[in-house]
Amino acid sequence: MKEPLVEGSEAAEIRPGAKPDELEVFDHGFVRLDAAMADDLSVVNGARVSFAVRKDSIDERDKGLIRFLMRERHGTPFEHNSFRFHLRTPVFVAREWMRHRIGSFNEESARYHQLGGDFYVPSQKAVRTQVGKPGSYSFEPVSEIVATGAIDTFRRVYDQLYAEYLALVEKGVAKELARCLLPFGIYTQFYWTVNARSLMNFLSLRNTQAAQYEIRTYAQAVEHFFARKMPATYECFVEFGRKVP
Amino acid sequence: MKEPLVEGSEAAEIRPGAKPDELEVFDHGFVRLDAAMADDLSVVNGARVSFAVRKDSIDERDKGLIRFLMRERHGTPFEHNSFRFHLRTPVFVAREWMRHRIGSFNEESARYHQLGGDFYVPSQKAVRTQVGKPGSYSFEPVSEIVATGAIDTFRRVYDQLYAEYLALVEKGVAKELARCLLPFGIYTQFYWTVNARSLMNFLSLRNTQAAQYEIRTYAQAVEHFFARKMPATYECFVEFGRKVP
Amino acid sequence: MKEPLVEGSEAAEIRPGAKPDELEVFDHGFVRLDAAMADDLSVVNGARVSFAVRKDSIDERDKGLIRFLMRERHGTPFEHNSFRFHLRTPVFVAREWMRHRIGSFNEESARYHQLGGDFYVPSQKAVRTQVGKPGSYSFEPVSEIVATGAIDTFRRVYDQLYAEYLALVEKGVAKELARCLLPFGIYTQFYWTVNARSLMNFLSLRNTQAAQYEIRTYAQAVEHFFARKMPATYECFVEFGRKVP
Amino acid sequence: MKEPLVEGSEAAEIRPGAKPDELEVFDHGFVRLDAAMADDLSVVNGARVSFAVRKDSIDERDKGLIRFLMRERHGTPFEHNSFRFHLRTPVFVAREWMRHRIGSFNEESARYHQLGGDFYVPSQKAVRTQVGKPGSYSFEPVSEIVATGAIDTFRRVYDQLYAEYLALVEKGVAKELARCLLPFGIYTQFYWTVNARSLMNFLSLRNTQAAQYEIRTYAQAVEHFFARKMPATYECFVEFGRKVP
Repeated sequence: MKEPLVEGSEAAEIRPGAKPDELEVFDHGFVRLDAAMADDLSVVNGARVSFAVRKDSIDERDKGLIRFLMRERHGTPFEHNSFRFHLRTPVFVAREWMRHRIGSFNEESARYHQLGGDFYVPSQKAVRTQVGKPGSYSFEPVSEIVATGAIDTFRRVYDQLYAEYLALVEKGVAKELARCLLPFGIYTQFYWTVNARSLMNFLSLRNTQAAQYEIRTYAQAVEHFFARKMPATYECFVEFGRKVP
Repeated sequence: MKEPLVEGSEAAEIRPGAKPDELEVFDHGFVRLDAAMADDLSVVNGARVSFAVRKDSIDERDKGLIRFLMRERHGTPFEHNSFRFHLRTPVFVAREWMRHRIGSFNEESARYHQLGGDFYVPSQKAVRTQVGKPGSYSFEPVSEIVATGAIDTFRRVYDQLYAEYLALVEKGVAKELARCLLPFGIYTQFYWTVNARSLMNFLSLRNTQAAQYEIRTYAQAVEHFFARKMPATYECFVEFGRKVP
Repeated sequence: MKEPLVEGSEAAEIRPGAKPDELEVFDHGFVRLDAAMADDLSVVNGARVSFAVRKDSIDERDKGLIRFLMRERHGTPFEHNSFRFHLRTPVFVAREWMRHRIGSFNEESARYHQLGGDFYVPSQKAVRTQVGKPGSYSFEPVSEIVATGAIDTFRRVYDQLYAEYLALVEKGVAKELARCLLPFGIYTQFYWTVNARSLMNFLSLRNTQAAQYEIRTYAQAVEHFFARKMPATYECFVEFGRKVP
Repeated sequence: MKEPLVEGSEAAEIRPGAKPDELEVFDHGFVRLDAAMADDLSVVNGARVSFAVRKDSIDERDKGLIRFLMRERHGTPFEHNSFRFHLRTPVFVAREWMRHRIGSFNEESARYHQLGGDFYVPSQKAVRTQVGKPGSYSFEPVSEIVATGAIDTFRRVYDQLYAEYLALVEKGVAKELARCLLPFGIYTQFYWTVNARSLMNFLSLRNTQAAQYEIRTYAQAVEHFFARKMPATYECFVEFGRKVP
């Protein structure tokens, strides 16, 4: 399931959360499954309606059907379900996330609401450098001294920026304008409601080596909930190379 | 809720079904809510995440918020839910239904599967004539003799067509080709998974005088389940003219 | 490009049309490219904006970029274009076509408009039988006598049905109701506006052995126009197995 | 067409650009129509295909049809066209823009590419304060001294942030990580391909008093191109209250 940037680093960034169905991610983030209408049976019934058949539970033949659907990329039966996630991520992660158009989003407002003062500071191991050529970049750890320096810079600049932002707001400048100073590393929160087919598309693009480490870590937390709700579907997703059917 | 073609006629076409959460429609159709992840609270939380607030239950202020969202057409908070319907309708109804692109469908196959021999025969009162000019057509009942004649024609032709279809299949002609003879009045079945915002769009276009009587009747059955699952949302939908937010 | 059901049979069903940019298909159908805003350059610029670069024409390196995008399944740069098709197909073909949700449709109305009397009669070679098991069906020609019989049945039944339909309309029955008698083999026409990425998805699912012969033939005509407008993109689409990027 | 925040202020922010079909917006932004397949005739033909009619040019009756479609909210005929825009906006504007899901985007990358050092500094008149209550906020100019102070803060902080960002990149920190320090006011660029129906939805939500001043100004520049390409459609859009059909 994981091919981490630095061995085990993503796993180390994900911890059980305080609420049920919640995983904490990084310093201030979380992935929480708020609700789900999702099981493998819905895939089977979505497919078997072709033959006017309806099941109340699934058996081994039905698992074979799910395998067939995944392998042959019959995607529509994987859409009759829904996951509602509540997420907290840095803005640069949210920006990548919201490029996924098949699904629904509502996000914390920076127009009318004063954003909280939480910012993403990477762990020591997650400070990396980019190597390679366009089209095949990869990432390697930096020296300890560079990592420490970068983390210090993040902390110092975040503190200053948030103070500058608050000062502008206090002087009466509209929050929607003062936010021009807020950096991509600030945390936001949002709801995301999505079906399994679109979720598999998300996972195929975001829980992969080509994706940025931070969104990849979030995608692993999301994947955990998908695997739990639709185990037979998940197994086939992995078996056939994690491609969207 | 209803402005029927002929007073009360749609209501007369809808009856409680044999299964839970099922309404029978017309002679062989049904609308069954197979599953739902839908409540008014999800609308409230979708909206309140703007201010980083989360509720566990809704109160009068939250109902006011839903009213505000509906009136001002803030549509996205109405998307964090899902209804999965199992439906049986004549094909001409299904064709109109599947033009709605925000949602998921799987349908009985006429390629690999021999369609059953059920066909839509309108009730006496539902046989109508079209009057008016392009852009403002309306419908009026026909005389009893024309209605009876039409019903006889439907029955006779349906019987013959189904026999011709079976005969071709028996001679070895592929079902996918033999179906060329099947008429739009034949029943099909399908799953439809949709969120409340897209559902309201469906209702605004299909449970209205401008829609064809048959799909309007189905839309009323669908509306029944929507009203039951999201009562505050439904009330505002009706109050603000049944427009999609 | 083609793996026809019966060698060369699809090609034999497609002929140059009377209008520019039109291909005639089967007995009464056509595929006409009504307008296009589509070239390979738009793919290159969609991708190169990542690096804030804009080109006015494409060279060999740009073709390499298109290859890279297709191989690595970076799909979004293939969306900055548009094809508007005007199509005439039997209704059972249109039904499959309109399941494709990323794109726009407007279709001839059978509610307010009396459909013309053209029906699809398969060519002698296209009358086939279904063999094999669920999940791996294939099709083989039937004997000449069965084919001739089927064609006779189609013609006879179509003629009768259209007469029954007209008779109901003449008696005053609304066209929207009388259409219950019209068979799936009747021709309809529609506009379809779609971008190259969604078009490639259509082609990957419909111009393939698993698709029904009739829509596959139409898909081949559509593919002709795609290949002509975006030759470098088309070449890569074929090279990487005709999968949607 | 305009109800500006401060009389004439949006207009003052939009100027003819150096390239054809380009409008400059604010200090470093632009809206450029890169290509279009869009005219009023496509709306007429999309609608008239219902009656199997096709026109080669439009007349007064066709304009009446467009009016009817807009008034009655028959939206699909407005989808058979396409606009491809090339845009440069601050990131906080782009974030709002990309929430519009019916359309295609490709954006400048901050993962692999070093973003240029252009940042949005509001004009003196555009520095505003927020007044009113939740659900009905409005904006008013601040005093000259506050405006000048805010502008000075923006300039000072932007300069510092960009220097901190470059310093991290020079030390070898991956650009995708160093960008955590970049503020929402930095400029990005992107392509946006969209049809007229989705464009009208964008305009109805973004060129309105409720929208933030900055995206509203961009929306006015976009509206200029829409009005020019589809004048009859545009006239009806305005006449019926700028609602999406």
